[in-house]
Amino acid sequence: MSRRIRRTPYTDRVEAAGVTGFSVVNHMLLPKAFNRSVEEDYWHLRKHVQIWDVSCQRQVLIYGPDATELVQLMTPRDISRAKVGDCLYIPIIDDKAGLINDPVLLKLAEDKFWLSVADSDVILYAKGIAIGRKLQVGVSEPDVFPLAVQGPKAEDLLIEIFGKQICSIGFFKFSWVDFKGSRQLIARSGYSRQGGFEIYLRGGRLGSSLWDTIWDVGQNYNIRPGCPNLIERIEGGLLSYGNEMTQENNPLEIGLEKFISLNGSVDYIGREALELIAEEGPERLIHGVLIDGPPGNVCTIPWPVFYKNKKIGQVTSGIYSPRLEKYVGLALIDRGYWTVGLPVEVAFSSSQCFSGNLSELPFA
Amino acid sequence: MSRRIRRTPYTDRVEAAGVTGFSVVNHMLLPKAFNRSVEEDYWHLRKHVQIWDVSCQRQVLIYGPDATELVQLMTPRDISRAKVGDCLYIPIIDDKAGLINDPVLLKLAEDKFWLSVADSDVILYAKGIAIGRKLQVGVSEPDVFPLAVQGPKAEDLLIEIFGKQICSIGFFKFSWVDFKGSRQLIARSGYSRQGGFEIYLRGGRLGSSLWDTIWDVGQNYNIRPGCPNLIERIEGGLLSYGNEMTQENNPLEIGLEKFISLNGSVDYIGREALELIAEEGPERLIHGVLIDGPPGNVCTIPWPVFYKNKKIGQVTSGIYSPRLEKYVGLALIDRGYWTVGLPVEVAFSSSQCFSGNLSELPFA
Repeated sequence: MSRRIRRTPYTDRVEAAGVTGFSVVNHMLLPKAFNRSVEEDYWHLRKHVQIWDVSCQRQVLIYGPDATELVQLMTPRDISRAKVGDCLYIPIIDDKAGLINDPVLLKLAEDKFWLSVADSDVILYAKGIAIGRKLQVGVSEPDVFPLAVQGPKAEDLLIEIFGKQICSIGFFKFSWVDFKGSRQLIARSGYSRQGGFEIYLRGGRLGSSLWDTIWDVGQNYNIRPGCPNLIERIEGGLLSYGNEMTQENNPLEIGLEKFISLNGSVDYIGREALELIAEEGPERLIHGVLIDGPPGNVCTIPWPVFYKNKKIGQVTSGIYSPRLEKYVGLALIDRGYWTVGLPVEVAFSSSQCFSGNLSELPFA
Repeated sequence: MSRRIRRTPYTDRVEAAGVTGFSVVNHMLLPKAFNRSVEEDYWHLRKHVQIWDVSCQRQVLIYGPDATELVQLMTPRDISRAKVGDCLYIPIIDDKAGLINDPVLLKLAEDKFWLSVADSDVILYAKGIAIGRKLQVGVSEPDVFPLAVQGPKAEDLLIEIFGKQICSIGFFKFSWVDFKGSRQLIARSGYSRQGGFEIYLRGGRLGSSLWDTIWDVGQNYNIRPGCPNLIERIEGGLLSYGNEMTQENNPLEIGLEKFISLNGSVDYIGREALELIAEEGPERLIHGVLIDGPPGNVCTIPWPVFYKNKKIGQVTSGIYSPRLEKYVGLALIDRGYWTVGLPVEVAFSSSQCFSGNLSELPFA
């Protein structure tokens, strides 16, 4: 640990809660484990409620007269109809349609946005474009640190703290609540399929106080400290930047066509490249894979996928699901093999190869 | 570990050599320890030779008719007199003169450069500017993975492998050598003050072979696997992006005036802001600090520095030096207190405060 890898306003509390490992995302600490197995956390997340330090979802503040223009330049998703209070999942691409990031966009005002980013320095891309185009826009990092409350009991817990008003927040919408005299943004969103909220805490100095408040009230809801759960995320078909997608991938390969505007009136970087790919069709496409194999492995290096001894793709995230009693994987599969149910072999290592089948996403 | 945090072509060998911990830099693994203390590694590095996997110094390839223009836009250092074969340490700044990175620039041809970057996604900044300005330039990551050979015996070791020709490579210059039929770039550079080289391996598939060759020949030189050594780096006054500098800092604060062109003919992003800072003088300036205190602490969160009970700055990197028998620290000190020898107090934690003195850099 060094200053280079930043602690968050919640790290003290995360440590007090018994964290046993961290990962690094966006040069910040992301808790990875709390002395329980991924399986235990998985079952708990599906039944109760968890508090996650997701400060590593760093915010990029874009504001000023050309803010909308800059955001639209970065994404093939049409943001023209977005309203203040909306959260939008927006793929960000470069001029070759390679994926730079897949943040959530929060529209704070007509001329003010946050990008809540996955693991790459989107702020540098935004600054580069803004400077290069001489746009009238500010690009900076605000003093904001997201804290996620996820699981089926999240809403009841947060009603106790913030009141009934949070019930009216729609999925991927946000609103404002009071917290100890400060005005805080709360969105119905999060990196799980179990429901819940993300509080975008403004003012890191309030971190411990916010954590403690949720923790104390959460005792009645069997709250636990947690983190994005690999089993739940894969079952839910939630993608991870750096795993399912890198700058080598385009949005069509990973199934994001519903988030992009093809042949529309929107002007964005990479449009020509992306429309060419759309016309010719992508070379590979994301699929689920269900694999028969004994529990115990996690995909840390891509697992090659074979059909009749021919390599047809690779699993980019994979783990054993105790509920489905098979491995669940997210895999990029070459064109020509996009058949749900296709029997495949997946090599966990040079000495471990198991049978499986391509599947739809999300997993049932 | 996941695909998101990339292994390197040397990770297998690093694991076989007994690595006991990794850090993450540029979304890649950087070995941090090999079952020996930082002190043992420090003494060994000063006497013998070490092999370091520094693949996380990712390369940004910039090529094409506007390559020089793009590189010059990113840095306040005048690159107009750089020759093919030169390595240049170049601060990269934004429009407010905030530091984006401090890479080494390698001039491969008149229209072709690599940026060997510290811990931020410079490739995104370069892409943004290139796209925004519609420059005729390609920006991509080549298949290149630096491996450092550092220490006083590095040259003798590498002569055995690549021949006497490497003696003629000047400091911060590079040349080409043959390795198993491939042409490889070797520079006299590295993140230590003990001398040595960095081999910018072209072709990750050759990683194990290159490591093994150096390792085998290195047996006669008491070679050990290693990594940048915190004691040696701080003593040598080598700065670390993310520690001594972030986007909140400008090059003048951290003593980089000799690497920037003020009031010259060079046009670069942030020139106006940087010249204003130069005119008014920076608000803080980097200094060494020598601190009397018992061994055992490492600066993981900035240590506040006090003069007569007034906070005058902070240590951003600090560790005990077994040679100087004091802590050595790099500290940003507020204007008005820039006196070598100034007596200060440094708080390692709320309960541990020790006396020290400001010092010159590098430490003697």
